Amino acid sequence: MKVGTEWLVDAHGCRAEALRDLAVVRELMETILQRLELRVVGEGAWHEFGGEGGVTGLYLLTESHLSVHTYPESAIATFNLYCCRPRPDFPWSAELARALGATEVNVRILDRGSRR
Amino acid sequence: MKVGTEWLVDAHGCRAEALRDLAVVRELMETILQRLELRVVGEGAWHEFGGEGGVTGLYLLTESHLSVHTYPESAIATFNLYCCRPRPDFPWSAELARALGATEVNVRILDRGSRR
Repeated sequence: MKVGTEWLVDAHGCRAEALRDLAVVRELMETILQRLELRVVGEGAWHEFGGEGGVTGLYLLTESHLSVHTYPESAIATFNLYCCRPRPDFPWSAELARALGATEVNVRILDRGSRR
Repeated sequence: MKVGTEWLVDAHGCRAEALRDLAVVRELMETILQRLELRVVGEGAWHEFGGEGGVTGLYLLTESHLSVHTYPESAIATFNLYCCRPRPDFPWSAELARALGATEVNVRILDRGSRR
């Protein structure tokens, strides 16, 4: 039985300075939350790795969770959106290009809870 | 370039009462954290959906994140472990059988950040 859908989104070619900037990444995550009308429980949890490192953000949702990890040294940002109610498609490629400068965005969509 | 490994673990046939019990699910998550020597940043975030509903737990790790969502109505629990440093295998089937009564455990292992 399917209990949810998970989007695994890996963005390449991002600007390193954007991936180190918590405000930039947080604003992008808030755009995703708003556009998909996701409901956050509590506050998001954020961590900056400092120096040349990236950032991590996690939101607990009534629909499940949303996460981001950034890797400035590799120009990569990765997102998980796990959602247990149907949601419209999010324009990942366009929005990650706009916010982070991503030049290539791979989206995998997986069922959770279904037997394969 | 690969930046991490993600384990998507879907457990079927779990006991509904275990999936509703935050203490049981939290103890299982703490076992995973300890056995894999994962390093939690801050506190885990937990939410109980109440009544017949399940629980959600999220941990921000220096290695990335660990999450659980439970669905007592379907006897299903789903886990994500996203880790950016190599970790030994965790005995998912045995541990989820022990803690939750899972009768079938599906583990998918995915690279993050690699171009496919």
